[in-house]
Amino acid sequence: LEEGERVEVKIGLSGFGNVGRNFIGLLLEKKKYLKDKYKLDLKVVTVLVSDGGINNPQGIPLEKFAAIKTAFERKNMLGFDDRLTGEEAIKASNADVWVEATPTNIKTGQPGLTYFHTAFDRGMHVVTLSKGPLVCAFDQVMEHARKAGVQIKYSGATAAALPTIDVALNSLAGTNILSIQGILNGTSNFILTAMEKASLSFAEALAEAKAQGIAEPDPSLDVEGWDTASKMIIIANSIYDTDFKIDQVKLTGITKITPADLQEAKNRGGTIKLLGIAEPIGDTFRLEVAPTFLRADHPLASVNGTTKGIYFCTDTMGPLTVIGGYSNPKGAAAAALKDIISIFAPAAKTFSTSF
Amino acid sequence: LEEGERVEVKIGLSGFGNVGRNFIGLLLEKKKYLKDKYKLDLKVVTVLVSDGGINNPQGIPLEKFAAIKTAFERKNMLGFDDRLTGEEAIKASNADVWVEATPTNIKTGQPGLTYFHTAFDRGMHVVTLSKGPLVCAFDQVMEHARKAGVQIKYSGATAAALPTIDVALNSLAGTNILSIQGILNGTSNFILTAMEKASLSFAEALAEAKAQGIAEPDPSLDVEGWDTASKMIIIANSIYDTDFKIDQVKLTGITKITPADLQEAKNRGGTIKLLGIAEPIGDTFRLEVAPTFLRADHPLASVNGTTKGIYFCTDTMGPLTVIGGYSNPKGAAAAALKDIISIFAPAAKTFSTSF
Repeated sequence: LEEGERVEVKIGLSGFGNVGRNFIGLLLEKKKYLKDKYKLDLKVVTVLVSDGGINNPQGIPLEKFAAIKTAFERKNMLGFDDRLTGEEAIKASNADVWVEATPTNIKTGQPGLTYFHTAFDRGMHVVTLSKGPLVCAFDQVMEHARKAGVQIKYSGATAAALPTIDVALNSLAGTNILSIQGILNGTSNFILTAMEKASLSFAEALAEAKAQGIAEPDPSLDVEGWDTASKMIIIANSIYDTDFKIDQVKLTGITKITPADLQEAKNRGGTIKLLGIAEPIGDTFRLEVAPTFLRADHPLASVNGTTKGIYFCTDTMGPLTVIGGYSNPKGAAAAALKDIISIFAPAAKTFSTSF
Repeated sequence: LEEGERVEVKIGLSGFGNVGRNFIGLLLEKKKYLKDKYKLDLKVVTVLVSDGGINNPQGIPLEKFAAIKTAFERKNMLGFDDRLTGEEAIKASNADVWVEATPTNIKTGQPGLTYFHTAFDRGMHVVTLSKGPLVCAFDQVMEHARKAGVQIKYSGATAAALPTIDVALNSLAGTNILSIQGILNGTSNFILTAMEKASLSFAEALAEAKAQGIAEPDPSLDVEGWDTASKMIIIANSIYDTDFKIDQVKLTGITKITPADLQEAKNRGGTIKLLGIAEPIGDTFRLEVAPTFLRADHPLASVNGTTKGIYFCTDTMGPLTVIGGYSNPKGAAAAALKDIISIFAPAAKTFSTSF
């Protein structure tokens, strides 16, 4: 980049729930910072919501759009089309990158999967906050992106603001990653911590998590381990260049854990955490999600509450643990923004020692 | 990269101490892996040792060179020139990247600083394991690299295998980093841990560190905080685009810490760690190295022994902590290899979704 030169990036967005709203909020909040630091001028040209969409090749006025409170107000917004479908919106959009943030479905991958393919066919990069398409069809998605000559980034689909894959691919480049262990689900970790620290039963801790707005009304995907398994599949496939499916994960949730189990773990000098585990063993792989005893000196043992963490064991750099990052919609939105920066202004280009 | 296409990378190396030897060992150990995974064919064309050097544009036979035990054997090796100086070696070398691993001098930056400039002038990238040149002349070095159109990478000069700057620039892209705290010196942390866990005095713990080969014969740079300050200067200048010098760091070492201090910290529900701290405060900066009280729930409080860690506080992603990575010459060598990979085969290019 020449001094002062700016890159205009046109963004399309599907999904305007908590994460989508936070993403728009972040673009507004960081507009000047992104221009100054990364020379990126981000514009949103398409937004797709559950009851239609808006397409404005010159850029949607975001302050105005974000301020809209009701579907009725939205329908009366100039340019809003309540019959616009996702595929139509993507085909009609002049976006450079499509941000997918609709509710995820890990069984079908839809509607995200169709959006990905439509975006790739239009030469758009994809940044996804939705896990489903990658859980269902990892290899297919990567292959299509490769053939289309575009990038797909999915930090927000693995552990929101906790970096996982980019640490492995950048910071651990050149190592063999012998094992990956992750606390990847904030709700489950919150429940286990509450059970341990306040001697609650699983049901009591779950009720507390619901009361605090941490657990979903239907928490089964979280507490039965499906969410952890989904993230671990995506992480493992990215790092090991594999194409594992979720039914290959040996899966045990935390619903049967009792305060007595946690007390026993404490007596043994440790604790129990819901871990996602991926490790190559000879020509095969161990892929497992299970409540796991960790000694107190294990780097993930003190990761409590909704905090997440990932532990890599490598040959030449030894063990590496990453802990933290907001476990909330703002953190997920920030992860999507990071992905956009990494596509259009990667560190090697923006840092002062660029080529 | 097209399928099957390989990039040949010619490497020059100055310094053949512990780290330099480990680096050569790593190239031998990882030769096939680097070809398969990153399509990189790494050759060493120049090695500069304390009593001369060898220059072989076709590639030095590394097995043979690594097996040499004595200076006498080396002098009799075909092509070895015992009058070759560093500058001459670099000027005569056909290397694409120069790896600098001579003993560091944080007062003058020499001889590394001269090697950097000579390499930049020849259009070589630089990967450094030596802190000195960056501590003394950060801005000057970056500016020269930028003008020469080459990259300089220095993971091995900040905290060896613990990633610091690449996490900030890649994984935290788009955030404002509000504060950085680091346990960056393995020797000091080992001593504090030994004082705490075994109730040793500073002198006893230092003796133990020397006995285990952890502390240098002259440990003053470590225990007085200069090493931590050097690393923090490089990290802060990289992340905040500043040009701080080491005399701007408020510096206190651990030599006056007593077992009573550690006991008192424990009674207060925490511990004492030697932290490097960098944080913007208004229009100015806090740059400090000091033994610091950390509550037990601070993510760096449980980083013990020679393990290192870094804690970032960000606006939109919250707190992020990275812990681990070998604190030894092998870890430092692996960090240099990572830097070479990031120059010649960055993740965006080698991952299946490349442009």
